[in-house]
Amino acid sequence: MQKRVLSGLLSAFLVAGSAQAADDLMAVAQDFFKPIPAKPPALEGNPASAAKIELGKMLYFDTRLSESHNISCNSCHVVGMGGVDLQETSLGQSWQTGARNSPTVFNAVFNLAQFWDGRAADLEEQAGGPLVNPVEMATTEGHVVEQLDGIPGYHEAFRAAFPDDTDPIRIENVQKAIAVFEATLITPNAPFDQYLNGDETALNAQQKAGLQAFMDNGCVACHSGINLGGEQFQPFGVVENPGEDLLPPGDKGRFDVSQLPEDEFVFKVPGLRNIALTPPYFHTGKVWDLKQAVRVMGTAQLGIDLSEDDVENITAFLHSLTGDQPRIVYPVLPPSTAETPRPNP
Amino acid sequence: MQKRVLSGLLSAFLVAGSAQAADDLMAVAQDFFKPIPAKPPALEGNPASAAKIELGKMLYFDTRLSESHNISCNSCHVVGMGGVDLQETSLGQSWQTGARNSPTVFNAVFNLAQFWDGRAADLEEQAGGPLVNPVEMATTEGHVVEQLDGIPGYHEAFRAAFPDDTDPIRIENVQKAIAVFEATLITPNAPFDQYLNGDETALNAQQKAGLQAFMDNGCVACHSGINLGGEQFQPFGVVENPGEDLLPPGDKGRFDVSQLPEDEFVFKVPGLRNIALTPPYFHTGKVWDLKQAVRVMGTAQLGIDLSEDDVENITAFLHSLTGDQPRIVYPVLPPSTAETPRPNP
Repeated sequence: MQKRVLSGLLSAFLVAGSAQAADDLMAVAQDFFKPIPAKPPALEGNPASAAKIELGKMLYFDTRLSESHNISCNSCHVVGMGGVDLQETSLGQSWQTGARNSPTVFNAVFNLAQFWDGRAADLEEQAGGPLVNPVEMATTEGHVVEQLDGIPGYHEAFRAAFPDDTDPIRIENVQKAIAVFEATLITPNAPFDQYLNGDETALNAQQKAGLQAFMDNGCVACHSGINLGGEQFQPFGVVENPGEDLLPPGDKGRFDVSQLPEDEFVFKVPGLRNIALTPPYFHTGKVWDLKQAVRVMGTAQLGIDLSEDDVENITAFLHSLTGDQPRIVYPVLPPSTAETPRPNP
Repeated sequence: MQKRVLSGLLSAFLVAGSAQAADDLMAVAQDFFKPIPAKPPALEGNPASAAKIELGKMLYFDTRLSESHNISCNSCHVVGMGGVDLQETSLGQSWQTGARNSPTVFNAVFNLAQFWDGRAADLEEQAGGPLVNPVEMATTEGHVVEQLDGIPGYHEAFRAAFPDDTDPIRIENVQKAIAVFEATLITPNAPFDQYLNGDETALNAQQKAGLQAFMDNGCVACHSGINLGGEQFQPFGVVENPGEDLLPPGDKGRFDVSQLPEDEFVFKVPGLRNIALTPPYFHTGKVWDLKQAVRVMGTAQLGIDLSEDDVENITAFLHSLTGDQPRIVYPVLPPSTAETPRPNP
């Protein structure tokens, strides 16, 4: 495990070193990172259509998908708050708290897997998780279908979204529709994207210094690609354990999924897109200050006490990752009727 | 109290009677009811501006106005669900339930007062209530101001909304901004509005029969005007007590506000606009079936066992009160920073 990380770090240092020599920050950055595309990517086996995206948006906002009728996808992944809820861990059924900080839904389509431990392969699989998690939406797949079937307006919406399906109100289609909507939640055009696309003026001097420090110090070993993260699993505390507050011993991360010893305290590397909008940080949500999060990463992952200049500059660079936020028209949800299954708070 | 209602009923019967004679349903309806205007009304002492409406929308959706950062105005008055939450009574701080069913925010600007007991004179006063209600958003006025002051993006938004105010982040301005946004939440162009505006074809035969029955049976004595209600206070159970389930003896309604004996079990007459979208019904939220609500009104308020034909027809008429739902673009909320006051779930 350590070997894998260190080899990653090493190659990062090598490339960053050569970049410094060539004094071509933009070219090196273009090697490590990719801009968010202007249009949402297609999902394998789940083609998008306007009707499916609209249905997915309705489902994303419909609290009737939860047992209490009080919680929707948007409760924890708020489209007006960077795709998160600004909580350490979310409040769910009966005011219970979730086990880990809610990751942003924005640009999640570009991650190699979903959830902090990557237990869902993709958005479609992820969408099924919170529905049945007893501390989140706390319902069952069967009841979701029964609930939606009991809302007449959804019959037409599912037919339009899945025109070739004779029985379209199925849990698989609920997840497919939510996934195609979520795939639209991308945030292109951040200053850093403009920079990657060749606009030298899109980052200021401090942000460029931060980008350089981000690469020189080896952050880029894990935080690269389109999301500056989201492409690997890595242990938290590879060099120095960040302490029980940030790494509680009871949560072994990906180990709980794989049962492999090398996956103890391994988590998906979070993407850094819109990171300035999404405190608090880490899977525990215990760090509210982005600068402090940068310092922790330095010591825990890299074994470096980053200089305050580096911390300031890297944080300024991270602010350049805030892209255009999605413009979402609130869906008009189909009404309940006397026969619609009722909430069970 | 009874005298007041009965005199209202009497005049309603008289007018309805004359209407029947004249066989001019539309003309009588135009006497009793007014269409929702195409544009929001102005609020006295609180002029609207684009910046103030936008700020109000941000505040309406911002969960950081609650102590837990988990509840916003939109949690209970959902803009995609007829302005309600489709709950008997809402879930608030620590999963506590509210005392009465959440009334719709849509067209609330046309009501004579706000809340079921009318304890707030207007939208501006109402907006302050849930913020500090311990079972709802459970915060304090001081903390709301402190919270917003700790979110840098709100500084500019308040300055733009209140350009003549040297210290604009004040609780009064929070309420004013929310009120001007809420005043935009009107639903014009329902079939019934089109009918009132002269389109004979906007109601079908059953809906016209329902309208006739609505007037003939005396519903119109209380449910008239622009909102078909919202203009009077009346006792619930004036002729026959609807039972403890619908009228729990512990909730004396407006009496708690005025302490006047004649206000025992008196409530604001709810408006009927979009009523088909907003189950469950009554201040307890105990009736989910609109037809059953119509029957209860017949026995409790009018002392009439409405015929099933009348119930069906009146319900069909009530469906004609569903107007164009507001088209709301979800606001992009200003980010929290390391210094922003944190949630207290």
